[in-house]
Amino acid sequence: MYVIVSSTNRQGSVSIKLATIYFNLLKDKGIDSQIIDLCDLPDDYLSSALYEKNGLNKIFNGQRETMLKASKFVFIVPEYNGSFPGVLKAFIDGLKFPATFTDKKCALVGLSSGQQGAGLALSHLTDIFNYCGMNVLAYRPRLSNIKENINMTEKMLSDQYRDYLQRQIDKFIPY
Amino acid sequence: MYVIVSSTNRQGSVSIKLATIYFNLLKDKGIDSQIIDLCDLPDDYLSSALYEKNGLNKIFNGQRETMLKASKFVFIVPEYNGSFPGVLKAFIDGLKFPATFTDKKCALVGLSSGQQGAGLALSHLTDIFNYCGMNVLAYRPRLSNIKENINMTEKMLSDQYRDYLQRQIDKFIPY
Amino acid sequence: MYVIVSSTNRQGSVSIKLATIYFNLLKDKGIDSQIIDLCDLPDDYLSSALYEKNGLNKIFNGQRETMLKASKFVFIVPEYNGSFPGVLKAFIDGLKFPATFTDKKCALVGLSSGQQGAGLALSHLTDIFNYCGMNVLAYRPRLSNIKENINMTEKMLSDQYRDYLQRQIDKFIPY
Amino acid sequence: MYVIVSSTNRQGSVSIKLATIYFNLLKDKGIDSQIIDLCDLPDDYLSSALYEKNGLNKIFNGQRETMLKASKFVFIVPEYNGSFPGVLKAFIDGLKFPATFTDKKCALVGLSSGQQGAGLALSHLTDIFNYCGMNVLAYRPRLSNIKENINMTEKMLSDQYRDYLQRQIDKFIPY
Repeated sequence: MYVIVSSTNRQGSVSIKLATIYFNLLKDKGIDSQIIDLCDLPDDYLSSALYEKNGLNKIFNGQRETMLKASKFVFIVPEYNGSFPGVLKAFIDGLKFPATFTDKKCALVGLSSGQQGAGLALSHLTDIFNYCGMNVLAYRPRLSNIKENINMTEKMLSDQYRDYLQRQIDKFIPY
Repeated sequence: MYVIVSSTNRQGSVSIKLATIYFNLLKDKGIDSQIIDLCDLPDDYLSSALYEKNGLNKIFNGQRETMLKASKFVFIVPEYNGSFPGVLKAFIDGLKFPATFTDKKCALVGLSSGQQGAGLALSHLTDIFNYCGMNVLAYRPRLSNIKENINMTEKMLSDQYRDYLQRQIDKFIPY
Repeated sequence: MYVIVSSTNRQGSVSIKLATIYFNLLKDKGIDSQIIDLCDLPDDYLSSALYEKNGLNKIFNGQRETMLKASKFVFIVPEYNGSFPGVLKAFIDGLKFPATFTDKKCALVGLSSGQQGAGLALSHLTDIFNYCGMNVLAYRPRLSNIKENINMTEKMLSDQYRDYLQRQIDKFIPY
Repeated sequence: MYVIVSSTNRQGSVSIKLATIYFNLLKDKGIDSQIIDLCDLPDDYLSSALYEKNGLNKIFNGQRETMLKASKFVFIVPEYNGSFPGVLKAFIDGLKFPATFTDKKCALVGLSSGQQGAGLALSHLTDIFNYCGMNVLAYRPRLSNIKENINMTEKMLSDQYRDYLQRQIDKFIPY
């Protein structure tokens, strides 16, 4: 099972729109997937689900189980303060280690309002996933100036960016 | 004013002990400092203090103000999953940008149970702080195998690790 | 064809010994490979084989062709000044881009006299290879304190480090 | 003494033009500097100046001495294959360690034909210089699409990019 993670808990984010677009592109290739939206984390996640409370938050445990069972992941990663959103790493810190990631595979997509397209965020995440034993697809689209390349109401991407995602999917399926 | 950040919200962490040791080492040099313990973040921090709710959580606003007023920072950074704790980046994401960090200076200390001493965590954090316009002291002790080098009840470090921290302080004060 | 790159041009390096050990471990699994030793680069490589002179140095062209034809790579990477040896990146800069690496796969092994095991070197290299479109196996052994773990005359590794390499090979063959 | 390093040995590079522009901007502020051009490395640098031959190449020894005596450095860094040019790291590997860099200060400028402005190159270099004990100024201009922003014959930058360099100099002098 493929799982697509929308890596921010900001309401109405571009990331969740992109996750939906990605979901549909996978579907066009005959691949079923499931979206995990970090907006759905429990409000008290930081104090109820980590460390010695790992596994004790029933709401989070559903998401945790979904992550554990997945075979492949797509992470849609917006750039916050020069890296990924903190909530994404906090989410990773609450997952079952190392079984959630070891010997699995993932694809990363970066996005930013500015010009960098989350390049450093993807580099940092790759370090983390490699540490966790998960292989990261080399082809990682960096969708810079995303606001000028997405129609939020229609959930449509510019042709160029849709091509990037399709090229990634074509590499990711046999990976 | 110097602020020392204990960069995890794990209860009873080594990081908060190290923060206290650092506080005392600074005091020995005649430097006053204040500790920010991420254990003190509001339970619902992720849903009440970020993005469009930035500045609306009164409990967090005190910590936010302390960070804004500080001139120099020390970050005590444990290694979680090959990088820094997610809660640290979530904390950074809630601070006033860019005024909290621009043109200020910080020192980083890494620690780990294992052999790496949070080397990649410090590299990632340096990227983030440089992006935010904050200068990072080059000398960044990596305290690997920390459990064998700290006496938690006495809040004492091994001579070698205390020397590392003192050398850092000697470089950081005139930085 | 597998190619193993010994990533330094230092004479009598540990890296070339490790490359030979790796060669034999692959052979035990029935895999033929070829070693590229950066000691064999032409003396005037920097001035005769790069940029507008790309492809003009006949000695280097043999190595360049070997790299171009390979399907999988193993890089044995010693830590120099907190990253990989400069000569390795200079070597990469002279290869045919992007055909040498795109959509191929590689495995990285780090080594150091000290405690880090070339962790940052492997992170930097992963960034570079991902940029070049080459997938990097997540499992990247970091052989710290290498001098205490290798018998240079017998070309023997400590049991622990040999196990790391064998585990990597077991993951790399089907990758 | 300030030293400006043009970090490639490619003939007629944009980097050496930028180094000259930087030299003049420093001069306008009353700061004398000296340019090290990696084009001036000996042709056989890789085989005559590194490791056990460190300090034995008389041509290189002049550059090595200049680097050793400098108090502050500016590195003009073009993006090659997703990072810095290999020759730059090979140059660093031949310098006197750690005296060349420890407790000194540097400023980094990235440039690229493409959109990234050498962001990862600057991140990797910062890791290396921090390892060597040299403090890196946080403000690191990334001059993307450099060809559209420089007049090579007149050695003139676009107003925006000249402003970036001037802002960096204003931060670097008191650093």
